[in-house]
Amino acid sequence: MKSSFKGRDILSLKDFEREDYFHVFEVADRLRPFAEDRKNTDLLARKTLVTAFYQPSTRTRLAHEAAMHRLGGHVTGFSDVKMTRAGDFYQESIKDTVKMLEFYGDVIVMRHFQQGAPHEAAKWASVPIINGGDGWGEHPTQILTDLYTVYHEKGRIDGLRWLAVGDMRMRTMHSLAYGLTQFDCPITFVSPPELRLTDEFKAELREYDLDFREADHVKQAIADADVILVEPVVQPDYTKSRDEREGDVGLTPANYKITRELLSTKAKSDAILLHSLPRMDEIPTEVDNTQWAYYWQEAFCGVVMRMALLALVLGAQE
Amino acid sequence: MKSSFKGRDILSLKDFEREDYFHVFEVADRLRPFAEDRKNTDLLARKTLVTAFYQPSTRTRLAHEAAMHRLGGHVTGFSDVKMTRAGDFYQESIKDTVKMLEFYGDVIVMRHFQQGAPHEAAKWASVPIINGGDGWGEHPTQILTDLYTVYHEKGRIDGLRWLAVGDMRMRTMHSLAYGLTQFDCPITFVSPPELRLTDEFKAELREYDLDFREADHVKQAIADADVILVEPVVQPDYTKSRDEREGDVGLTPANYKITRELLSTKAKSDAILLHSLPRMDEIPTEVDNTQWAYYWQEAFCGVVMRMALLALVLGAQE
Amino acid sequence: MKSSFKGRDILSLKDFEREDYFHVFEVADRLRPFAEDRKNTDLLARKTLVTAFYQPSTRTRLAHEAAMHRLGGHVTGFSDVKMTRAGDFYQESIKDTVKMLEFYGDVIVMRHFQQGAPHEAAKWASVPIINGGDGWGEHPTQILTDLYTVYHEKGRIDGLRWLAVGDMRMRTMHSLAYGLTQFDCPITFVSPPELRLTDEFKAELREYDLDFREADHVKQAIADADVILVEPVVQPDYTKSRDEREGDVGLTPANYKITRELLSTKAKSDAILLHSLPRMDEIPTEVDNTQWAYYWQEAFCGVVMRMALLALVLGAQE
Repeated sequence: MKSSFKGRDILSLKDFEREDYFHVFEVADRLRPFAEDRKNTDLLARKTLVTAFYQPSTRTRLAHEAAMHRLGGHVTGFSDVKMTRAGDFYQESIKDTVKMLEFYGDVIVMRHFQQGAPHEAAKWASVPIINGGDGWGEHPTQILTDLYTVYHEKGRIDGLRWLAVGDMRMRTMHSLAYGLTQFDCPITFVSPPELRLTDEFKAELREYDLDFREADHVKQAIADADVILVEPVVQPDYTKSRDEREGDVGLTPANYKITRELLSTKAKSDAILLHSLPRMDEIPTEVDNTQWAYYWQEAFCGVVMRMALLALVLGAQE
Repeated sequence: MKSSFKGRDILSLKDFEREDYFHVFEVADRLRPFAEDRKNTDLLARKTLVTAFYQPSTRTRLAHEAAMHRLGGHVTGFSDVKMTRAGDFYQESIKDTVKMLEFYGDVIVMRHFQQGAPHEAAKWASVPIINGGDGWGEHPTQILTDLYTVYHEKGRIDGLRWLAVGDMRMRTMHSLAYGLTQFDCPITFVSPPELRLTDEFKAELREYDLDFREADHVKQAIADADVILVEPVVQPDYTKSRDEREGDVGLTPANYKITRELLSTKAKSDAILLHSLPRMDEIPTEVDNTQWAYYWQEAFCGVVMRMALLALVLGAQE
Repeated sequence: MKSSFKGRDILSLKDFEREDYFHVFEVADRLRPFAEDRKNTDLLARKTLVTAFYQPSTRTRLAHEAAMHRLGGHVTGFSDVKMTRAGDFYQESIKDTVKMLEFYGDVIVMRHFQQGAPHEAAKWASVPIINGGDGWGEHPTQILTDLYTVYHEKGRIDGLRWLAVGDMRMRTMHSLAYGLTQFDCPITFVSPPELRLTDEFKAELREYDLDFREADHVKQAIADADVILVEPVVQPDYTKSRDEREGDVGLTPANYKITRELLSTKAKSDAILLHSLPRMDEIPTEVDNTQWAYYWQEAFCGVVMRMALLALVLGAQE
């Protein structure tokens, strides 16, 4: 019997069992046509989503908003803590804030600079909390998106070999690793030495029996990867203007860069290349119109996945 | 015969007669189930609310937005004057701004740093203006919320004795005092000496025959209070980070602090404790799960009251 | 046969042929009653507008949002690039951003500090792009609004003589000039010497056979103007507070100022005075209640025109 998602918080992929993923994918496939046909439905016309973004965001916030609109729902909230009463949320406890926000809508998506903030919110809220990224913690809806993108394309998750490139201390990587523990998916993590998985996290992954290894160069792992998930390893220099920063392209060392040449010469012809964007030059634009580029399908799936999650936790889909 | 609210501005509680309050409470009770059942209705599906917030706000702006969404309506506007064309609204007269905003929707809620700005707006607008707080002026929808919270709980307003703690020069206190002039409600104001009611305002309240007194310590008035309304008397030190500011707790002098011990030993067992939040430490969290704490019901009533006001001024309820 | 607007980008008035204008005006007239009666319809209830404002804006953003709401549609997006992930859009290419935004809704309105950005967006997007103002480039929806305001009032565009006052290097003036090339409308441009039409642009207008001249003083052209379109020639001094800036009134030289006295003594009695606002003192408030003032009708037409454009490009009107 499928577990019900009604009223459930989406905080961490540690809480997701294997069947939960397939359940969510099934609902995503069911709602996908509304997004494909560009026709908002009225499944959630009676509901309101509250966005509580303590840190600016574009994709995560807008994907949730777009999903809610596609389902005919309403959206309110804040997209930058500075837009709220001076210092309000800096001084106020999560409890006090959430015990207000829960009356403004029926589900809350929260991004917070502090790890665990959405969990604290969930302790107090009478409505479901969706973790939209919490500090160094997790980013479950992004990885659900990525897994769904792969599932939709390949028809399966099990048996696929992953290569992840980026800063391994980041929340996305945490959610990815937790997610893959529920599948038969070996993974290789490639990152600069100073951005490696922490020892603590590796110990945790070993307890989960995740089949993982680390490598120094994408070349060591790309040949048998079915899915290549890339995040930046360098950050833009925000002290420069955008034009000055053009020169920053070229900063990503070859070890962490997926070029067209590398793909053509080394990668499986049906490998799926993912990136949640924005990117620096770790995937050059020359890759965009190759068969490997799936990052824009991923962006589309980001809306579909949030439609599924919203419909599920609000009880509009079983 | 009840006065009609259709097309009416909500600027000051000085404009509210005794029967207006009961009229508004009645409509609030009527619409309350939509909020309780978490089901947006379509009473205002054909209408748009314009938010014109010249100062950041969370509760006031979001409560109005949430109310509009609960009634199925649309929302547009600005939540921070800095998000608008550089300096736009700083240079522009209220008249010019409002004679644009009135075409963007059917009712405008305005928060402004200048006292009287919503009144100026109402002079020019062809749509109702709701005062969402104007400088040191008034905050009528907050006090309507508070009165409604009390009314819903006690079934009456008359005969209840109030205790108000906080900065008496603030807009909320002005609206509270005007509100109570229409009822048989004695009130004691407790504040630090430098935050007292102004002489001018006290003279005005005497003309209204409001039964009020001032006191130095909450202990002097808590014993026979039926309603205890608290606002901060100290401000957070925004030059400190949130973590550094943890130490600020403890700053509120005992004179202006409602502790669990004080409530247990001195307060009426059925007294209602209100706070529009956010709070410093004037109400410690230990009070949250006592019988006196009504500040979260107050937050809920904040949405219901705005639903009533929006439905009334837009003519969707009589 | 009328050209179809379905799926079309609104980037530049250079792309508009004569019959396009009348087509758009006709649809505007058809949708106008929904705005006049203050009753949102559900023509676009299944659609979502994405606002992509890289620069703050009030009128352009809110007029589009209000139009979408009047047609029952949904709105998401960002109103200030700083609200997005730190520096996100500064570092990211228009291509990458748009290939995300296109999944969040069904039409995108973009304001950008860089000329040509909406054109670049249109190259990549699978949904229509509306130019909400691009640097020194164009502002087509504003001038469509102005032309429609005149058309609605006079019943025609041909044969009317224009006077434009302001900074001639600005995007509004570019769109105006392109617009008038399709009509029999002589125009005089009045501006300070340093804010004149560029030589390059004048050469372009001569190729279009636009009947234009330049003048130094509004007096030289106001007598036979049927339409007077005014923009500021001075900018507010943002280093001063609003109150200090009150003294700035009086800054606009008489050459570029439309006073009540000038209108009464020199202007045609049925001339139409337009200003997209905000204003400095180039049109003093004494003009507001004269027969010439049409800038508030213009603000209203701004919503109606965006309703027409949104309905057209989304295929909800033919």
